Amino acid sequence: MDNKLIFIGTIRTPYKTLEECPHNIDETGPICTLEVDAKYAQGLIGLHSGSNILILYWLNFARRGVDVGYPYISTTHQMCGTFAKRSPHRPNPIGVSKLKIVSISENSISVRGLDCLDKTRLLDIKPAILKE
Amino acid sequence: MDNKLIFIGTIRTPYKTLEECPHNIDETGPICTLEVDAKYAQGLIGLHSGSNILILYWLNFARRGVDVGYPYISTTHQMCGTFAKRSPHRPNPIGVSKLKIVSISENSISVRGLDCLDKTRLLDIKPAILKE
Repeated sequence: MDNKLIFIGTIRTPYKTLEECPHNIDETGPICTLEVDAKYAQGLIGLHSGSNILILYWLNFARRGVDVGYPYISTTHQMCGTFAKRSPHRPNPIGVSKLKIVSISENSISVRGLDCLDKTRLLDIKPAILKE
Repeated sequence: MDNKLIFIGTIRTPYKTLEECPHNIDETGPICTLEVDAKYAQGLIGLHSGSNILILYWLNFARRGVDVGYPYISTTHQMCGTFAKRSPHRPNPIGVSKLKIVSISENSISVRGLDCLDKTRLLDIKPAILKE
């Protein structure tokens, strides 16, 4: 079975190092840009400013395994396995974030307050329909 | 850059063909099971029945490209590109669903109403914190 990811574009954020990088999305944070490769640009038709999107991105610096430890933000002080944490260190280091489109051009989408390094590779954009 | 996915387990659903398969999650639907491979089972520590989880899974039957067409469920009758649709046919056919854990054992999680084929490969489980 094919198990290879295709990188559809690049995310531009202000963060050049992991130390600078926030640990969560901030809807009031700085503008970040999803630059979609030209060959995939027609896939953006139908998205508009104000649309809620879910994006998937590849956290390639991560350690690819499971462990048990304390979550970065913990209210219960309970040990948690990888799948009970949002840590990037996991077998498949795919970040998932729900964002609102600030503006959109032919192959570029502006959003606010992403929590990943500059030049993170983009995997997917979907309309957001996930409910709380 | 590494771009290979690791399959962490297998999803068991009642659906053997795409024709039988529902197109959306149904919280009142039949029980489905996430069977996590034994080597990743310790990653489940800290998850409980009632926990909301986000799961990522690999829709390996999909056509891996972008197109423009009508969404499967459309209220606006507008043409949409792949990234404005939830169709499985996309460059990286990764399904994302938010579910509530019905029950959990050492390496198996029961949920309700998943919308994928039996034996779909599981990529990730995260605590669900995405808001509407």
